[in-house]
Parts: sequence; C-alpha cells; structure tokens
Amino acid sequence: MQNSEADHTSNLDSFFNARTVAVVGASTNPDKLGHVILANILFGGYTGRVYPINPKEKEILGSAVLSSIDEIPEKLDLVVIVVPAALVPGVLRQAAAKGAGAAIIISGGFREAGRIDLEKELLEISVETGIRMIGPNCQGINYIPNKLCASWPLITLEGSMAVISQSGTVAATIAGWAEEEGWGISTAVSLGNQIDVNETDLINAFAGDDTIKSIALYLEGAKDGRKFLAASENLIANKPLIVLKSGRTAGGQRAAASHTKSLAGRDEIFDAACRQTGVVRANDIESLYDMSKALASLQVSGGNRLMVITSSGGSGILAVDNAEKHGLSVPPLPEAVVAELRHAEIPANATLANPLDLTVATAQEFKNALRVLMQEDLADLYLLIFGDPIPGAAGTAAWLRDQIGSRVAVAYLGGGLVEKEERVILHQAGIPVFTTPERAVVALGSVAWLQKYKNARKSL
Amino acid sequence: MQNSEADHTSNLDSFFNARTVAVVGASTNPDKLGHVILANILFGGYTGRVYPINPKEKEILGSAVLSSIDEIPEKLDLVVIVVPAALVPGVLRQAAAKGAGAAIIISGGFREAGRIDLEKELLEISVETGIRMIGPNCQGINYIPNKLCASWPLITLEGSMAVISQSGTVAATIAGWAEEEGWGISTAVSLGNQIDVNETDLINAFAGDDTIKSIALYLEGAKDGRKFLAASENLIANKPLIVLKSGRTAGGQRAAASHTKSLAGRDEIFDAACRQTGVVRANDIESLYDMSKALASLQVSGGNRLMVITSSGGSGILAVDNAEKHGLSVPPLPEAVVAELRHAEIPANATLANPLDLTVATAQEFKNALRVLMQEDLADLYLLIFGDPIPGAAGTAAWLRDQIGSRVAVAYLGGGLVEKEERVILHQAGIPVFTTPERAVVALGSVAWLQKYKNARKSL
Repeated sequence: MQNSEADHTSNLDSFFNARTVAVVGASTNPDKLGHVILANILFGGYTGRVYPINPKEKEILGSAVLSSIDEIPEKLDLVVIVVPAALVPGVLRQAAAKGAGAAIIISGGFREAGRIDLEKELLEISVETGIRMIGPNCQGINYIPNKLCASWPLITLEGSMAVISQSGTVAATIAGWAEEEGWGISTAVSLGNQIDVNETDLINAFAGDDTIKSIALYLEGAKDGRKFLAASENLIANKPLIVLKSGRTAGGQRAAASHTKSLAGRDEIFDAACRQTGVVRANDIESLYDMSKALASLQVSGGNRLMVITSSGGSGILAVDNAEKHGLSVPPLPEAVVAELRHAEIPANATLANPLDLTVATAQEFKNALRVLMQEDLADLYLLIFGDPIPGAAGTAAWLRDQIGSRVAVAYLGGGLVEKEERVILHQAGIPVFTTPERAVVALGSVAWLQKYKNARKSL
Repeated sequence: MQNSEADHTSNLDSFFNARTVAVVGASTNPDKLGHVILANILFGGYTGRVYPINPKEKEILGSAVLSSIDEIPEKLDLVVIVVPAALVPGVLRQAAAKGAGAAIIISGGFREAGRIDLEKELLEISVETGIRMIGPNCQGINYIPNKLCASWPLITLEGSMAVISQSGTVAATIAGWAEEEGWGISTAVSLGNQIDVNETDLINAFAGDDTIKSIALYLEGAKDGRKFLAASENLIANKPLIVLKSGRTAGGQRAAASHTKSLAGRDEIFDAACRQTGVVRANDIESLYDMSKALASLQVSGGNRLMVITSSGGSGILAVDNAEKHGLSVPPLPEAVVAELRHAEIPANATLANPLDLTVATAQEFKNALRVLMQEDLADLYLLIFGDPIPGAAGTAAWLRDQIGSRVAVAYLGGGLVEKEERVILHQAGIPVFTTPERAVVALGSVAWLQKYKNARKSL
C-alpha cells in the first residue's frame, strides 16, 4: 500500500503489500474458485512468491504445489483460503504459525448458513494470533498497485478508484466496466461476512493511500454506524466517498438480513447522516460507478453552473432536462459570447445557446467554439457531448481540460468504433466519459452536491 | 415493408421497400456524410440498385457515379439527399420526375437555420408531385428487412424493435447498443424537421409491420397531439409504444424549441394522456432501450408478481429494493416450496426466499432450483440474475422460457467474457438481458404497467 499516513493502515499491510501468498485449496479444475483465483494471481503480474497448497496435487498451472502451509520455506504474509468451512480454522492457525498477518477467506458456509459457531472460532484465532481476516463468504481483494488479484475476474488496469463492497458481484461489475472502458481501478475489496475487517477499517486504510482518489462503497448495513460516519467524515476532507446502500425498502431489508445478516436500519436516518457527513449517495450500480469516476477525476471547487456543448441536439436537451433535478444550473449564454460565436468557424446551423448545439461537427469545430467560450467565466463544469463518430474528439476535450483544469466531462454516444477508441484515449487522459447525457448529469450532479456540502461546511 | 395491413403503409412503401436508390451528394471523401451513407448502403447488404450522383466524380467505392438523376436508366424509388440546402428543391423535382415516391433529406440548413422559406418550397414540391419526405436535417433511415441502411452508423443485425427519433443520435445510440449485444433492431428512423413524415405517420405504418414487436420513440414534441394519441391507441392494441419525451423542464423546453422547433407542451398533460392511452413512458435513453427490449419479447398478460433467482445476494437485494417503486410485487416463497428446495441439488448455503439467493452457483444448480419453483404458480415474471461467469446460463434461461413461456428476463453482471458470450446467446433466443438488476426491474416494471393498463381497459 502506498501510504502517506502509515499509521492508519499498518495493520492491513499484509493484505495490500504482501510479498508471499499461499492459496489453500488451489485446484487443477478450471471451474473451481481455487483454480480461478490462483490463475488470476499468477497471470495478473504479481511479483511476490506464490504457494499453491493442496495435499492431492503436485503441480497446478506450472507451479509446484505444497501439501500444507507448514512446508512453505519462508515467512508467509497472506493466505487465501478456498476450502470447506469446517477446514478453515485449521488453515488459519497454520498460516498464523507461518507468520501470516492476513487471511482472505473465500469459503462460504458460516453465519449465512447458520454456522455462527465457526465464525466465533475464526474470531478467536484472530484475537489469539493477530492475523487479520477479510471474509468469510467473500470474493477476495484485488490491489493493482501490488498487481495482486486474489479475486475474480482478473482485472489488471490500474486507475484511481477504490471499490469496497458487501457484494462480490457489485465489486466485480464495477471493476469489469472500469477495465473494459480503459478507466481502471486501484483496488476492489469484497467484504463478505466481515467478521473482522469491515468497511470502516478499509475507509480508514484508504484515506492514506495516495493511489486512491475516490471510494465507491456498496453497503447493506454498517457494522457500527457511529464509527462509519466518523471514518467517512475524516476521509471526505481529502477524498470523496460514494455509497450505494441497499435495503432501502422493507422487502430489500428482509433480503439484506438474509444475505450478510446486516441490519439495514431506517433509510431516512442513514440518508440524513450521509447528508450531514458529506457522503455522496448513489441510487444504483451504474450511478455508483459514474459518480466515483467523476469524483476521482473532477475538481470539487466552485459552483454548480453547467455549460453543455453538443453535436447532438436531442442529447443536449436531455442533459438540460435533467440538470436541475441533479442540482446543476444551466446559465444562458451571454449576448456578447453569442455575437462572437457568430464569427467562429463552426457549423452555420449551430444553435448559439446553452446547450450550444453545434449540429454535426468535427473535433476542430468543437475546439473553435470552445476557444470562444473559454474567454469568459461561463460555468463551473463543462459537458462535451459527442453524438457521432468524431475522430479527434479526445484531443479537443484534453485541450480544454489543459486550459481550464479538471472541470471537463464527456458524454459519448452513437459513435460506433470511433467512440470506443476515443473513450479509451479520454480515460487514459483522466477525463471521465459517460454513456448517455443523463448519466453524465447524474455524475456531474454528485460533484455539484459535494461542492455545495463543502461550501456550507466552510461557512459554518 | 412486411405488411399485414397494406393500406396503412402503402404511401410510405417507397422508403421501406425501395428497389432503386439514388444518393445525391455522394462523395469520395470518407469524412463526408455523402460518402458514409453510400458506403453503408453498399456494404449493408442492400440487394436493390444504387445510383451515386455527383457531377464531379466518375467512381466512388467501386460504383459508377452519374452526374445527375436524369441519367438514371430506370424508374427511381427513393432518393437520399446530402447536398447544401439551397440545392435540395432542384434535386427533389428531378427525383420526382424519375418516379421517386420517397426522399430522405439528410441536409440541414432549413427551419433550424431560419430558412422556413426553403422548407415551404419542399412542401410545395411534395404536394405537387406526391413525393414523400423524411427530414430535412435528419440522420436517415435504416430498415433491416430490406437491408437498406441509408443512415449511420452501419447496423445490420435484424431484431424486432423499431426506433423512431427526433434525435439522430438517440436512434443511432439505441441501434448501436442493440447490435453490440446481439439483440438487433428492425428499423431506426431519424425524423429531423418532419416537414412531411412525422412520428404519427410512422406509428401508423409500423402498426401493420410484422417485423416489429415494439416501438421506441424519442420525442421532443408531437406535431399534432390528438392524432398522435389516436395512432398510439390503435397501435397499442397490438404492440407496445415506449416514449422518451424531452422538454420536461423549462430549460429543456427552451432547448427543444431551438432543436427541432417542437413545442414540448406541459409535461403533466402529456403524461396524463400517455397514462390514458397506454403509452409507456421512459425516463432516459437507457430505459427507453431496456423497456423496448422487454416489451418486444415478454408476454404482456397476467399480474405483477416477480420471482428473483440470483447467484449474487447483493444484486437480489437491489432488485427487490427497486421492485415496488416500479409496480412489481415480490411475494414470499411458500413454505412447501422452501421445504422442497431443501432437498434440491443446489448450494448448501442458498437462502431459500424471494429473492432466492443460490450464492455461487452453476447453470445446472440454477436449473435444479427452477425445476422446483416451476411446479407452482409463484409469479408472473421471473428474473434470473447471473452475477458471475456462468457457462451454460443461457441454456438454463432458455429451458425455463420453454417451460413457462416468455416471462423470463435476465440480469447478467460481473461475468467477464463468459457474460458477453452468454448474453448474445440469450438475445438470439429472444430472452432480454439487462446490465444491472436495477435496469432489469425498470424494464420489467414497464411490462407490469402495461399489463395493469390492459387489465383496467378490459374491466371498463
């Protein structure tokens, strides 16, 4: 872990800076998680030493297999456990005896299956030996600065977002989207039953991790609401926290109670606490991802004025239509700017307003328009909507960002293969791209909301 | 056009069943729309005859170029016009003289640029000669049963959804998504300024087109509200209409007035009219797509009871959390079914409820659970959530659909490459797949809403 404040995170260091990893329950069967996780560690670029453990095998994926942890010829940092629940306590003791400071317990069959006794035993071992545990009943962790994907699917593209999730699937989904569109993540952690490490521990750990610019959290219920809010408040001074909390309805709460035995609590209370603490709330998985992208990359300073520049008239309207609902204002374009745009080399049919509808336009025509707009302090946030294949669009957006700072977001749609290419270029340049104008506005709304929160805080 | 009621559509036949097409303004420059559209017609599989027209060129993309429409050696059906606005009237007259019954006018520079006079001239020519016009200032039409993509981007995968749009980008975006995920479209029409053919004409035409199972409409303002509602009511007896209407807010209405000079009208009034007529309303581009997929493929008959079967606990909770808001009920699992599930070969840690959380599960384990559920009338709609790479998941969903009819939808997420493959297989089988549990619930909610509307109608 790239610490700036080592004290926050030292006790989770064996998870994130492990140099030796054992995979207990490694399997030759490609359908088994014990195979998939080993493969992801081996093929994900991890440079530490990996010890597959399975008494019945000699070699898996070209790696020699040991029959037990005892045979590891050096100190162990991290153990990843994928064996039946009943065997987990024994493995944990062996790992602790080898010096392991951390265990990722993938195995299910604990509290969620009525075996609270087994969880208690794990907790006792942890207290006794000092070994820290993520899980059980989880999907592992992927920490890309250490190239350690002890999870699935294999995600290797490094970015600046952390994902912490009580659902392995939600974490995997966001990580998968981030890799596919060239955005990347710093880390994804699946919490599982949280008998030891919980969301608050990770928020505290990630507060001091400079590879992380925003944290996306999927939560069914906080273990300790007061500690969660204190950790969040401390975090938010430096980096945004975006939370998707399920169990908002009676039906959802019943389901959450079954899943991770979380007590979801009354949603109004959680919501009020978030508002007071500066925690950004997302309403669905897509918003969680989009807001975390925006808040990992855009400046949170200034106001809520939005300027929309588009090659798609309809998309511009949809953006404006949704702006107010999400806390953004769309100021009219001053007459002086309109007059100057009349002389710019932009399409003759352009509608000179906000949204500025350029109609079918090239990247150069976008730039010509932006050159005029830039001369005035028109807005706090700029949304460029590319509604066609527009080669060079990424260059124009990057140019604008270099002029006015990280206040530029893009919606790109209807652009086929060119869109896919330009999106990856934009993401490599750290400019967030959204799938539709509506999703862009939701994401920019989260930036405006956090600005408003910070402004209100300052004036207290 | 595959007519079952020829009288509805005969006057638009030259658009959809054209056997000869001229592209006026065909260009050698790959950046020009006159090149892109010609290429898409030539490479899209169109089997009619294509005449590129440009007085300055001899050959484009291997096709001989004529210098004027007059040189076409046979009757013309359809002309696609991509020349400056001032030249359009002349081209239109020439095309009509060659017998053309239809013109797609891509060119901009008319009403939206203050040239109402030019539009009037076009309309006079239309009345005089009988030629029908789509546009001007539009992105053309793609009608896949005739393999005629007189638009961009090139989309060739045939499906059962029609898209009609006052924004070319919205149409292209939906068509692009549909092709990318193996769902396909029947047709996409960009309306532009609608001086002649408007959304109501197309709704009437598509009512009798058997290739079309649902219609997605992006609207800024209906030309004639009364006619639009009458056409919609007639349509909805046979196939669903889903509308995304922008200009819902004051800011959006101003922008819409600039874009296609549509009068958006008060949203409350439009909304009430939709509710009375059975028009399904979407709130954003993604919902417009998702609802149209669901309503093109799922049975609209029965009630609103939803059964959720998932391999991702968190996703199941998110589905249930959103169900009520979207008009779906999530009945508890009867004790007898729970008892029988205890003996099924499913993961030991499964949570036996609704949502039925199988935890990490194979396609076979899903099938084993479904075999038990199927024995009772538990629900009207079934949502399978696959929250991992699950090889064979498509086969299980198709098996369930074959047992209980088209009442099965899928949410697939966190599944990497396997997910992509299975999604295409599912779409080829006509089972709609959604990106997240929340989007699936929004789409299924539209089915429940339309059911409720139809039930209420019947009881009148």
